[in-house]
Amino acid sequence: MNPALFDATVPVFIRGLKALDACLDKAQAHADALKCDVSNILGARLAPDMFPLGRQIQIACDFAKGVSARLADVDMPSFEDTETTLAEYKARIAKTIDFLASIPAEKFAGAEAREIVILRGDTKREYTGLNYAHHAGLPNFYFHVTTAYNILRHNGVAIGKKDFIGSV
Amino acid sequence: MNPALFDATVPVFIRGLKALDACLDKAQAHADALKCDVSNILGARLAPDMFPLGRQIQIACDFAKGVSARLADVDMPSFEDTETTLAEYKARIAKTIDFLASIPAEKFAGAEAREIVILRGDTKREYTGLNYAHHAGLPNFYFHVTTAYNILRHNGVAIGKKDFIGSV
Repeated sequence: MNPALFDATVPVFIRGLKALDACLDKAQAHADALKCDVSNILGARLAPDMFPLGRQIQIACDFAKGVSARLADVDMPSFEDTETTLAEYKARIAKTIDFLASIPAEKFAGAEAREIVILRGDTKREYTGLNYAHHAGLPNFYFHVTTAYNILRHNGVAIGKKDFIGSV
Repeated sequence: MNPALFDATVPVFIRGLKALDACLDKAQAHADALKCDVSNILGARLAPDMFPLGRQIQIACDFAKGVSARLADVDMPSFEDTETTLAEYKARIAKTIDFLASIPAEKFAGAEAREIVILRGDTKREYTGLNYAHHAGLPNFYFHVTTAYNILRHNGVAIGKKDFIGSV
């Protein structure tokens, strides 16, 4: 049996990112059918003060990477936010999945009690690993992958909830 | 220490539903400021073949209720989908939270291995409790609360990701 916080995070992130990757292929097919550039979809937003699809993908990857690394207490790779093409966003997802798959499950032993400190600008948030996983990491990851899905749906990409859920 | 699948679900659903409830109050304030009926927002969708906000709320409540009851192996109340007003949708959220809060954490002991069978029409899906929680229940719950949030944002309601996350 794996540590509970491994099961709650790493396979969840991998499934969600693979599903997102497959949805991006359908976005390319949609753009091709419309004879438009897929970057028009990558730049789409649901509100003027929300991030566009491309940025939602980057942030989803960063939560998957950061949450897993912090809970496992392993170093995380740094990814620059330089993607502009669909192929580059898909590569970002692929390297995130590679990193996730490289973390041994046993590193999550005792992660529930691990002290997690998140610094953002002048604010400092302290969590137990348990609260960080369930009340910060997972809701943020799901927020960004669902918003990516919703941007695709809003732009007419032919996907359904099965495409969002994916498979383990 | 609570069983891991209790921590992964019940407090997560309660936090998410309370956050959604607070977002609905801001939707009412937004409709008041625009001098329009809040039902215009409850009926809004992100795509013609997606559910409107009101239905997203009902489904989020149903996943919270159903996932928790199945994992804990307790009877679940049946809620009819009769809501039409904001007050009624808020009452649906409140009675879902009341049910969640009534489930003793210890009922989740051993839930990882519990056999969960979901019948929908002619299709039958079988899961372990572990897979059901992490790869069906939670992604579905987050899908519907995030989509509800995105509909609100798309309609100009003044909320941010903090309002989505809420607090434990």
